[in-house]
Amino acid sequence: MKFYPGITLVTLGVENVERAGAFYERLGWRRSKGASQAAIMFFALNNLALALFPRDALAADAGLDPGAAGQPRQFSGVTLAQNHGSRSAVDSVIAGARAAGADIVKTPCDTAWGGYHGVFADADGHIWEICHNPFFPLSANGTVTLPP
Amino acid sequence: MKFYPGITLVTLGVENVERAGAFYERLGWRRSKGASQAAIMFFALNNLALALFPRDALAADAGLDPGAAGQPRQFSGVTLAQNHGSRSAVDSVIAGARAAGADIVKTPCDTAWGGYHGVFADADGHIWEICHNPFFPLSANGTVTLPP
Repeated sequence: MKFYPGITLVTLGVENVERAGAFYERLGWRRSKGASQAAIMFFALNNLALALFPRDALAADAGLDPGAAGQPRQFSGVTLAQNHGSRSAVDSVIAGARAAGADIVKTPCDTAWGGYHGVFADADGHIWEICHNPFFPLSANGTVTLPP
Repeated sequence: MKFYPGITLVTLGVENVERAGAFYERLGWRRSKGASQAAIMFFALNNLALALFPRDALAADAGLDPGAAGQPRQFSGVTLAQNHGSRSAVDSVIAGARAAGADIVKTPCDTAWGGYHGVFADADGHIWEICHNPFFPLSANGTVTLPP
């Protein structure tokens, strides 16, 4: 078996699993009750799974030093993005994130490459870019199609 | 439009886009030539897109301070996972990653929860968990199915 081109699960290290999960639930996601436990929470996304797990335990599970706890606006080096079909959809998601208590890192604006995006951080500083990219077609189930 | 349950793009901040991309190509992935440019490299995965982009530029694009550059074994707070159908598949992927120059952070071993996994870091310290989880069924296209 090889390293196939895919990601099945993204796990975000968080300070408090319930607090982190409550934020995503306020945004409209529903936890997988069957898979979640007190120490870990799972969300089934359209195209992969998201897990929330204590940051120190996540580091230890990988055999790594956890380092400093994530702080809002301290950059992890990773961004997660959601592409949307229009600029107004971006505005709407950012407004919803603001209402759910997100830290709006960047209010929606035009990008240098011809798109439109806004950025928010969750309670642990994980970064979500909400983006309209007119050059990457979106499929009905919310995946982007790249040129070959 | 709402915050639908999905991730369309994961972007990893890297020191050198070509060097980072060459590693994933050694693992068998092929860059999207149509979407990639000198400053950014894209890979079309089964279920979302992966981008490699200079870490400082990625932070600046989100309006954030880049902080210290990622170092191998300095934990970002995020792990990306690939689930596989068997323990031997995990062994095989980790062996391939080792041959491609990955830093093997954890050699494959049993997990406390009844699975089996190994962990490697790419050249910028981004963490991949290669995992066999007998409790999460895998679909043919490499996505996990969580209980509701």
